[in-house]
Amino acid sequence: MTQKIILDCDPGHDDAIAMLLAWGNPNLDLLAVTTVAGNQTLEKVTKNALALARVGNITGIPFAAGADRPLVAPQIIPEEIHGDSGLDGPQLPAAGAELDPRHAVNLIADIIRDNEPGTVTLVPTGALTNIALFARMYPELVERVGGVTLMGGAHHAGNMTPSAEFNILADPEAAKIVFGAGWPVTMVGLDVTHKVLATPQRMAQLAEVDTDVAKFIAELVEFFGGAYMKERHYPGPPMHDPLAVAAVADPQVVRTILAPIDVETKGELTRGATVVDLRRTWGSQDGGQDPTALGTADDSDIDAPASATAAGATLRTRVAVDVDAERFWNLLVDALQRIGSTGF
Amino acid sequence: MTQKIILDCDPGHDDAIAMLLAWGNPNLDLLAVTTVAGNQTLEKVTKNALALARVGNITGIPFAAGADRPLVAPQIIPEEIHGDSGLDGPQLPAAGAELDPRHAVNLIADIIRDNEPGTVTLVPTGALTNIALFARMYPELVERVGGVTLMGGAHHAGNMTPSAEFNILADPEAAKIVFGAGWPVTMVGLDVTHKVLATPQRMAQLAEVDTDVAKFIAELVEFFGGAYMKERHYPGPPMHDPLAVAAVADPQVVRTILAPIDVETKGELTRGATVVDLRRTWGSQDGGQDPTALGTADDSDIDAPASATAAGATLRTRVAVDVDAERFWNLLVDALQRIGSTGF
Amino acid sequence: MTQKIILDCDPGHDDAIAMLLAWGNPNLDLLAVTTVAGNQTLEKVTKNALALARVGNITGIPFAAGADRPLVAPQIIPEEIHGDSGLDGPQLPAAGAELDPRHAVNLIADIIRDNEPGTVTLVPTGALTNIALFARMYPELVERVGGVTLMGGAHHAGNMTPSAEFNILADPEAAKIVFGAGWPVTMVGLDVTHKVLATPQRMAQLAEVDTDVAKFIAELVEFFGGAYMKERHYPGPPMHDPLAVAAVADPQVVRTILAPIDVETKGELTRGATVVDLRRTWGSQDGGQDPTALGTADDSDIDAPASATAAGATLRTRVAVDVDAERFWNLLVDALQRIGSTGF
Amino acid sequence: MTQKIILDCDPGHDDAIAMLLAWGNPNLDLLAVTTVAGNQTLEKVTKNALALARVGNITGIPFAAGADRPLVAPQIIPEEIHGDSGLDGPQLPAAGAELDPRHAVNLIADIIRDNEPGTVTLVPTGALTNIALFARMYPELVERVGGVTLMGGAHHAGNMTPSAEFNILADPEAAKIVFGAGWPVTMVGLDVTHKVLATPQRMAQLAEVDTDVAKFIAELVEFFGGAYMKERHYPGPPMHDPLAVAAVADPQVVRTILAPIDVETKGELTRGATVVDLRRTWGSQDGGQDPTALGTADDSDIDAPASATAAGATLRTRVAVDVDAERFWNLLVDALQRIGSTGF
Repeated sequence: MTQKIILDCDPGHDDAIAMLLAWGNPNLDLLAVTTVAGNQTLEKVTKNALALARVGNITGIPFAAGADRPLVAPQIIPEEIHGDSGLDGPQLPAAGAELDPRHAVNLIADIIRDNEPGTVTLVPTGALTNIALFARMYPELVERVGGVTLMGGAHHAGNMTPSAEFNILADPEAAKIVFGAGWPVTMVGLDVTHKVLATPQRMAQLAEVDTDVAKFIAELVEFFGGAYMKERHYPGPPMHDPLAVAAVADPQVVRTILAPIDVETKGELTRGATVVDLRRTWGSQDGGQDPTALGTADDSDIDAPASATAAGATLRTRVAVDVDAERFWNLLVDALQRIGSTGF
Repeated sequence: MTQKIILDCDPGHDDAIAMLLAWGNPNLDLLAVTTVAGNQTLEKVTKNALALARVGNITGIPFAAGADRPLVAPQIIPEEIHGDSGLDGPQLPAAGAELDPRHAVNLIADIIRDNEPGTVTLVPTGALTNIALFARMYPELVERVGGVTLMGGAHHAGNMTPSAEFNILADPEAAKIVFGAGWPVTMVGLDVTHKVLATPQRMAQLAEVDTDVAKFIAELVEFFGGAYMKERHYPGPPMHDPLAVAAVADPQVVRTILAPIDVETKGELTRGATVVDLRRTWGSQDGGQDPTALGTADDSDIDAPASATAAGATLRTRVAVDVDAERFWNLLVDALQRIGSTGF
Repeated sequence: MTQKIILDCDPGHDDAIAMLLAWGNPNLDLLAVTTVAGNQTLEKVTKNALALARVGNITGIPFAAGADRPLVAPQIIPEEIHGDSGLDGPQLPAAGAELDPRHAVNLIADIIRDNEPGTVTLVPTGALTNIALFARMYPELVERVGGVTLMGGAHHAGNMTPSAEFNILADPEAAKIVFGAGWPVTMVGLDVTHKVLATPQRMAQLAEVDTDVAKFIAELVEFFGGAYMKERHYPGPPMHDPLAVAAVADPQVVRTILAPIDVETKGELTRGATVVDLRRTWGSQDGGQDPTALGTADDSDIDAPASATAAGATLRTRVAVDVDAERFWNLLVDALQRIGSTGF
Repeated sequence: MTQKIILDCDPGHDDAIAMLLAWGNPNLDLLAVTTVAGNQTLEKVTKNALALARVGNITGIPFAAGADRPLVAPQIIPEEIHGDSGLDGPQLPAAGAELDPRHAVNLIADIIRDNEPGTVTLVPTGALTNIALFARMYPELVERVGGVTLMGGAHHAGNMTPSAEFNILADPEAAKIVFGAGWPVTMVGLDVTHKVLATPQRMAQLAEVDTDVAKFIAELVEFFGGAYMKERHYPGPPMHDPLAVAAVADPQVVRTILAPIDVETKGELTRGATVVDLRRTWGSQDGGQDPTALGTADDSDIDAPASATAAGATLRTRVAVDVDAERFWNLLVDALQRIGSTGF
C-alpha cells in the first residue's frame, strides 16, 4: 500500500532530488507540491518547482505557492549554497505545470479535508512556515494529518550556527509551532543527513542509470557539492531533503527514537536549535559507542528518554539517530530508473 | 615535573574523590583548595572540604571559602543527588584543617601572583563563580594563569536540562566569563564523564586497595550512585569531577580538540548550555562513527573547526571528546595506594 | 464621508462596547466583525459576538471566527476580568447573526480585495493573531489596507506585567508581525485608555440615554469595573477597546505622535512590551510636564523621534499619547442614541 | 548630622560635577572615591578622578580603582558623549591624590566593616560593576550598607536604546545584582535627570560663583552639552550624576516612591531596561496628570504598587519620580561657594 504525501519544499538542490524521489518511488503517492520561501525567494523556488515538474514529468497533481517570508524571523537567503536561481547548475526547462490559484496553506487544508483522517503525511523540506500557518489557521485539521516527517534540525551540531540547522533557523517560531502541534513528527536532521554524502563513488553508481533526469541530478550535485567540499572539506554534499522523503518511503532507511523535541526561539547563541531530550541516552562504560548509533531499528532495546516515559503515550515526536545509507541510495537509483528519460 | 593546581570545588561526592586524587597523584602539586556554593550551601561544602582534609591527611595547604551564591542566577541546590550534608553516605570526621581567613578569590590571586606566570592551573569542579569573580576582580592576573581545566558542560546532551549540565547551569554567567576570559580552558564535560562510570566491577577493583580512604570512597559511590542507578538506570555513577583532575595529571586520559566554546545565558530551553562549535566535524560516509570518538589523542588527524582556523592562534578553548577509562581508574587506584590508610 | 472598518475582537466587555460604538457611529461603515481567542476561548467570544449582533441589531454584515489560540505563546485566558462567559454580567440574548463559513483571515482578505486600496481600516481590539496571520498569508494585500488602529500596548507601564499590556502579551509574536508589516499602525494603548474611566459620573451621563442597549452597557461596566475597582482602586474600568474605535471615528479623540514601535518577544521580564522609541521626547526644564501630554493634536509642534526623522517618510507607526475624554463620551452617547432601543 | 558616602564613579563630565558636589556639600561626608570603567576606560576615568582631586582640592580620602570591564556584557565606551579622555573640554591638572593600592571592591569592604552598620551610603554614578562585585564577594557586608542611591535607569524611556539608560546597559547583570541584593536602593533615573538641564540660564546662575572651579564646571557643561544640544535639541545637558548625590544630600530634591525594580538582562530590544512595577499608578479621570509627577514628597497619598503591598515590609527599592530643580541648583551653587577657588 502506498503512503500519500504532500511535499512542501523550497527547491533548492536537495529539494529537487527529494521531489524526484517522491515522484518515482512506488511506495509514495505524491498528492501535491507546495512551495515556501527558503533556499531562495518564493518566486524563485516556485518557478523551480514548476520547472522540476517538467524535468520529472510530474503531472496530475497541484503545485501551489505559500509563504513568502518567515513568521517573525528576518529572512535569510543562503545564496552561497543554492546560487542566484536557488537551483544553479543545470539548465532549467520551462514550467511543466500551472500554478494552482490556491494558497499553499489552503490547498493543504483542502487535501487533508478530502482524504481519510490519518492517511496523508506532510513532508516539509524547507522552512516550516506553511506547515505552521496551516496548524494555526486550521487547528481542527491537525488531528486528521497522519504525520509530519521533516528535514531539519539536529540533536547534536548545527550547520548555520554551532547549534542551529538552516531550515529551523530560517523560521524558528514556525518550527516551534510544528513540533508542538500534537501530530506525530519525525525529525530527519543533520545527525543522519551528514552521514549520507553524494561522494564521487555514489555519483558513479547514479550515473549508471544513464537518463536525462539522472544527468540533471548529477549537475545539481556538482553545484551543490561545491560549497560543502570547498569550505567544509566534505567528500560530497549531504542528501538532506531526499532523506526525509526516503524515511517515509521506507522506514528502514532511518532509525528513529521517541524523544521530546522543542525549538529554542530566544537564545543568544542557540536560536533555532532543536532541543532534543536525550538524557536517558548514555555511552556504555569504558566503551564510547553512542547508543544513538546502534544498528537496529527496534525501539525496545533502548530506554526511552525519562520525559518520554513520563509523558507516556502522548509523546509523538521522534528523532532520526541513524541511517542505512546503502538502502537510501538504492531507493534513489530505483526511483530514477522508474522515472526513466523524460526528454524535458 | 609536577603540575601546580588549585582545586576549586563544592564537595560533593565526586568533588571528594577529585580532591583525594589531586592529593595522591604524584604528578600534581595541590597548592590550595577553595570552595564555592554548588552541590550544597557554601557553609556545608566548606565544612565537607575541611573534613576531607582529615580523611586524606591533606596538610600544609590553605583551604579558603569563596562565593556563597551564583553571580546572577537563582541558586539551585541538588539535594536529591548529594543529600542534606552535600556528602551524604559515609561518616564524616571533624575538620582536618583550619579555614584560611582570606576570601577564596583573594587567595587565588595571592597564589597566582606568588608563582611564576603560566605555572598554576585552576581546576574548578563546581559552579564557576569564584573563577569568574577572580577574572573580573583581577584581570591583570588572567594571563599569569597557566590554564583552567574544568568539569562542566557538554557538547551534546545535558543532565539538568536537555542541553545544560549542572555546574554550568548553576551559574551560567560565571561560566560565560570563564570561557571567554582569554586563558586556556579545557572543558571536561558529560560527553566524557558519562563514559567513566563507577560500576560494581570498577568498585571491586578499587576495593582491592583495602584502606580506610578507599572504603570511604566506596561509601561515597554507593550513595552517589543511588540517584543515577535508580532514576537513570546507569550501571554506576559518573566520575565527573575526578576526571577533570585526571585530565591535568595525565593528558592521555582524555582526548581533546580545539573548538570555540561559549555559554548560552539567555535561552528559554537552553540556558546554561555550553555551545561548542563542532561544524567541521562530521560522520564518515555510510559509516556513522563519530570523529569525536576517534581513538587517538593526536590533534593533527582531525580538522580543526572552521571558526578555530579563522580565529587562528587565539583559539584557546578545548573540549574533551573521548576518554581512556582504564587509564583513569589506574590513576585513581594509584593515588589511593599512595595515600594509604590515614586512620581518620 | 464614512470610514470603512473591520472590527477584529474578542468580546469581552470593552469589545462589546466597541462593537456598539462602531455600529452606531455615523462616521464609520462597519464591514465585518471577526473574532479571535483572547478574553475567552474562540468559541465563547464568537458566541458573544453573535449575541451582540442581536443586542445592537447589527445586520447585513458578516461575522466570522478566526484563530483559536496564539501563534507561538501559550494561551492566557483572563477569566478574573471577563468571567466564565467572557461577557459576564448582563443576560445575553440568542445569536442575532449567522456565522460566516469563511475563516476570519480569509474573510478579511476577501474584503480587502473587494474594496479600493487604502479604504478599509482594520480595528483589532484583541490579540493580534488574526491580523498577523492575514499579513503572512496574504502579504500582497498588506499595501491595500488603509491602516490598522489597534487597542493594545503601552509606552509607559503595562497591566498584565510591569511592562506588558494584555492584548500584546496574549500573542507577542503576532503583535511583532503587525507593528512591522509596513502598513500604517496607530497604537491606542494603556497610556490613554487608563485616562478614560467609566466612573459613576460617566455612567450617570450614559444612563440618560435610557435605552435597553444603554442599560446593557451599564451592566457590562458594572461587572467589568469590579476587578479594576477592587484590586486596583480605579474609580471605574478603563474604556480600552471603544477608544480604538473612537480614534478612527474622530481623530480628535486621541492625540498621536509618530514613533518607532516594536514588540519585545524575548525578555525575561518584558516579553510582550511595546517598545516605543520616545528618545526625542523630554520634560521641560524645571517643569515636569510631559510633552506627550500636550493638549494639542498638531504634530508640528513636537519634535519627531530621532529615529523617525532618520527613517523619514517610511515611519508609519503612531502612538496615542493623549486623549480628549469628554469627546469620547460624547461619541459613545451619540452612538447609543442612534442605535436606540432594539428590544433584544 | 552628615551622611557618610562612598562615590563610585566613572568621570565623565557629570560624574565630575557629582564629585565636586559630594565634596562641597556640608551634609555629606565623602569617605572615598572609587572608579569603574564606563564613560571611558578604567585607566582614563581613574586618571580623571585623581585630577579632579586637585581641581576640588579633595584631600584626606582614598581613591581606588575597581573593575576594568563589565561582568558579562561587552564593553561600550560612549566616546561621542565624553570624548577621548572621558572628560574632554577643560584643561585637566595633574593628579591631586595618590591611588590607593587596594582594589575598589576591597576598599569598599574595608570601609563598610570599619563603620557602624547602616551609616554608609554607596552612591554609584557609573556602571554598577564594582557594587555588584562587592555584593557577591562580601555578601555578609550587604546588610551593613546603609543604602545605595544610584544614578541610572528610567521607568519610562531610555537614552541608549528606547528602553535602556547608559549606566544600566553598560552592565545589566551588575545592575540586576544591585537591585536584587536586599539593601535599600534608590534609583535616580532619566525620568528626573532629564528635568534638570544645564540651560544657559542655569549656567549664568552658576557663573556668578566666579571661582576657578565654577569655571571648570562651565567648561565641562559646554563640552557635555554639545551632543545633547546638537543631536537631541536639549536646551542643555542633563545633570544625571550630581542628582544622585543631591538626592542623598537633601532628600527634598527628588520625590521617590516605593516600587519593585528589576533589570531586564535578556530582551532583544529591552536589555538593560529597569523594569519598575508602576501598575498601581494611573492617570486621573479625564485629567491626564500623572501621579508620578505629583508635587509632594509624601508617600501616603499614593497607593503603593500592588506587588509592593504584597511584598510588605521587604520592598526596599525606590524610584525617583519627580524633582525640585530649583533646590538642586541651589545645592550646587552652595557647594561651589564652599569649595571656593582652589588655584588648581
